[in-house]
Order: sequence, then C-alpha cells, then structure tokens
Amino acid sequence: MRAIATHPAARGLADDAAVLEVGGETLVLTHDTMVEGVHFLPGQDPTDVAWKLVATNMSDLAAKGAQPLAVLLSYQLGRDDAAFLRGLQAALQHYGDAALLGGDTVRADGPQSVGLTAIGRASHRPVPSRSGAQVGDGLWITGPVGAAMLGLEALRAGTGDSSAYRHPSALLVEGQMLAPLVSAVMDVSDGLLLDASRMADASGVTIVVERMAVPIATPEARRDEALRWGDDYQLLFTLPADVPPPCPAWRIGIVLERQSAPILLDGAPVSGRLGYEHGQADGA
Amino acid sequence: MRAIATHPAARGLADDAAVLEVGGETLVLTHDTMVEGVHFLPGQDPTDVAWKLVATNMSDLAAKGAQPLAVLLSYQLGRDDAAFLRGLQAALQHYGDAALLGGDTVRADGPQSVGLTAIGRASHRPVPSRSGAQVGDGLWITGPVGAAMLGLEALRAGTGDSSAYRHPSALLVEGQMLAPLVSAVMDVSDGLLLDASRMADASGVTIVVERMAVPIATPEARRDEALRWGDDYQLLFTLPADVPPPCPAWRIGIVLERQSAPILLDGAPVSGRLGYEHGQADGA
Repeated sequence: MRAIATHPAARGLADDAAVLEVGGETLVLTHDTMVEGVHFLPGQDPTDVAWKLVATNMSDLAAKGAQPLAVLLSYQLGRDDAAFLRGLQAALQHYGDAALLGGDTVRADGPQSVGLTAIGRASHRPVPSRSGAQVGDGLWITGPVGAAMLGLEALRAGTGDSSAYRHPSALLVEGQMLAPLVSAVMDVSDGLLLDASRMADASGVTIVVERMAVPIATPEARRDEALRWGDDYQLLFTLPADVPPPCPAWRIGIVLERQSAPILLDGAPVSGRLGYEHGQADGA
Repeated sequence: MRAIATHPAARGLADDAAVLEVGGETLVLTHDTMVEGVHFLPGQDPTDVAWKLVATNMSDLAAKGAQPLAVLLSYQLGRDDAAFLRGLQAALQHYGDAALLGGDTVRADGPQSVGLTAIGRASHRPVPSRSGAQVGDGLWITGPVGAAMLGLEALRAGTGDSSAYRHPSALLVEGQMLAPLVSAVMDVSDGLLLDASRMADASGVTIVVERMAVPIATPEARRDEALRWGDDYQLLFTLPADVPPPCPAWRIGIVLERQSAPILLDGAPVSGRLGYEHGQADGA
C-alpha cells in the first residue's frame, strides 16, 4: 500500500494519521476499523464498542496534537443499534462535540464491522510525527500500561473493573500540550515495546526502555505482559534531555544511535512478541 | 442517527455528502462501505471491487461538483490483496490522482468489507444539494440507466459485456459543470425512481418522471426494471425551465407542487419497489 500512498500528506503510512494542508488550515485525518471477535468481544455492550471506536480515533488525533472537528461513520447493523448510537453520541460529546457528518450503513452477515474516519485541526505546526526522535532524547509516557489488559480479563470473567478496556481515554489535551515540544510522539495502541520499536524504526534510532521505570497498572509479576499489551492509549514521546514534560509523565528510557535492534530492554534486545501486530486475528 | 448529526455540515444526513467549511476552503466528505455478497459478488475480481469502491465515492463528490483531494481506506484482507491494490491505484489515478492518505487494515472472518472515505474540494459555492428542486424546474439525467443491470447479468452468466457493472464511471467533470446552474442534483446509485423520490422528499415537491423520456441501456421490454436499478451513477438534476444543461443530458420530467406522493410516473403514483433500499441484503 505504501507504493500507492506517495503523497507527502500520507507520511508514508508510517504515522498515526495523515496531515493535509487545506485552505490555510492543517487537517489531521485518521480511520480505524473494529471487527467483532478481533477488536471487541462478541456480545460486548454496543455502547462500549461505540465509545472505543471514537476513543481509538481520537487517540490518533491526540498523537498529532489535533482538535477534533468531525467524524464519518461506517456502520454494519448489529444486535442493538440504538445502544451503539447512544455510545457514539456520548463519546462524541465527551471529545469536544466532534460533529457526526455522515457515513454509510450496511446490513451484512458475519462478524460486525464498524469504522470511523476522524478529522481534526492541528493545534501546532509543524504537526509532530513518530519519526523525529533524536539521539540523546529522553523517552516518556503519560501513564501506566496494562490497565486495559486487566479490564479485558475482568470483562471476560464477568467480575471486577473492566472500565479501562471498555472506556479508554484519548489524551487530547495532553497531545496539544506536547505537540510544540516533542521530537517524536505516538499513541500506544498495540503495546509499549512494539510501538516504541516502530518509533525507533521511523526515526532511524534505537530506543532503550528501562524496564523498571515503566509505570504499570498490574501487579509486578505481570510487568512483562503489561509492556506488550495495547489498548491503553497512553502517549509515548521523546523530548530533548533538558526539556521537562508539560504534562504528567514518566521518563522510561533514552534514544541512542541506531544499533542492530530498534529497541533494547535494559540494554538487551527483546526476544519474542513485542505486542499486538495488525493482521493478527487473535489479539486484543 | 439524524438525532446525533445535528451539525449543519451533515445536511441532516439527507445528502450525498457532507459539506464542511475549513479555513478558506469548502470540503466535501463522503464514506461508502461495500460488503461481499451485498454490494459485490463473492468471487468478483478484487481489482474491479476496488474500482467500484472508488467510483461510488467519487460519484458522491461529483454530485457536489467537488474535485477529489484525498481518500482513506478501510480494508479487510481478502483473497487477493495485490489485485485490490492494483485496482485502487488505477481508479485513484483515473480520478485525478486523489491521494491515498492512510486508513486501516484488518483481518476478519466472514464476508469481506471494504470502505473508503473521500475528501474533495468544492468547485462552486454554495455547494448544490438534493433539496433545492423548485416548482416548474425541468428534471434531467446525464445518460441512460440499466447498463449496470445488464452488466451484472453478464458477469453472473460469465458471458457478455459486464463492464458497466464492474467499471462504473463517476461524472466528476459533469458535476463541476452542473454545480453553478442546478437547483438540485444527486447521483443515481439506488435506482432512478427511488433517488428521484428522495430528491422530491428533500425538496418538499413532487417530481413527475416521463417514463418514455428516460434514456435506457436495455431493450424496451425491460424499461421498468431499468428505471428501478441502481449502480449506473448518472447525475440526476433539476434546472429552471429556461436554462439549458451545460453537458449532454436528457430531459425526463418536471417538478410540481407537493402532491400526496413524492413521485409520479406519467402522472400516476408508482406502486411497489422503487429501487434498492439501503439495509436490504438482497440488492445489487
């Protein structure tokens, strides 16, 4: 697909969102699709599915420091369409009254598929990317990872607090505070280690993550899982060594010249799976 | 969904596309989703599926007189992804090099679902809608209907010319010529009679279609089917009585004050199905 997406606005498809100059404004555009049984549980409350669909798209805008402007919905009719619409409306209101402009509704067999295109307005230019990490920068994250993992387990078990999985928060305010300062930024959707390795690849550097410095929402025994689990939508970013973060954040690593591996955990290459790879059917 | 889509840009979800003012530009935004077994045949060449996905979205832009700017793709992996991408690239090039900016790729079971968000730039303001038809206007169409119906039959039979179904054309040039002149315009995607009735409802008028004046691509015996079949993507529009069309077009009716029915065929209400209703799983 990269061979087709040659327009500079596409950013080589290596970023959270596209950035398009139109009429003196800089628009940020993203689309996320969620499929029943892949991105949400069969039988999950449609209100929560709608919330998550909005939040994942808003998180892509957050990573660009953008303010939400509008959305278009692709909706496959499901079990309880009214519940989905209630969740959609609540989430759009929560995220600054992004306007539902239209979209398409289809009836089809098979697992339900829902998609959202979100359009935002950049609050700072140039719009930050994941490709600007510089040697010597610090690596930071806005909050703990692993909460969505525990939330999914609670939801599957039918007991405990599942809200972190069901109602993720997109960090739009933090994203706008970060945009003028960061050298690179992205949202953590597929796992900290995997997303950090993508930032390293995009930036042509190696990123060292200090394992014990990462804030986690899980018991200590599950730290390594938490570092590989997605769906928390924290913002991961790099800052020059002498620049303090403008919002609450944890310093979890450093940027080095490119080594043989994109990412090192406490100085050593990481073996095995780093997170949730797109195209997997068995992931979160 | 109309209860949520209250922003003026959404046009009450009663139009082909949304119209959004950004900076000094007027953007036109649309999203169409196509599902295997509903909007395309199981086993249909993915190159053609991609072409049609682009064409249906471009046709929505054509109805607004917009120039294509960019697209975002929602893609469920299928049998032959390379073939789909070839068709996507060919169609985007055909329609003025609209830039593929990004999107999302998912792996899922069940019928393949593909979606496209298209963003265009209005060539004329105010951007025309389907709701402006005035009493006394003439009703016009840019070309014959029924070609896609014959094309689908040829494709199913495995013999004959199926190109009208597989490779529909979006009338972008005609749409831009029409935008400054028309009182109302829309593309015919779901059947001439059904779409004309939607224009009549949106405009608060009754539209009389002169049955024998409609150009058809079928044998005369199948005229009534051709008037109810979609997928031809002609532009249907109304013009003041004294204004000639700026592009090749057929005059097929007239606009009257609102009667009990939105549409009359040779002066009489139409019974039965008018075209392809969204949400049907058995349509074209």
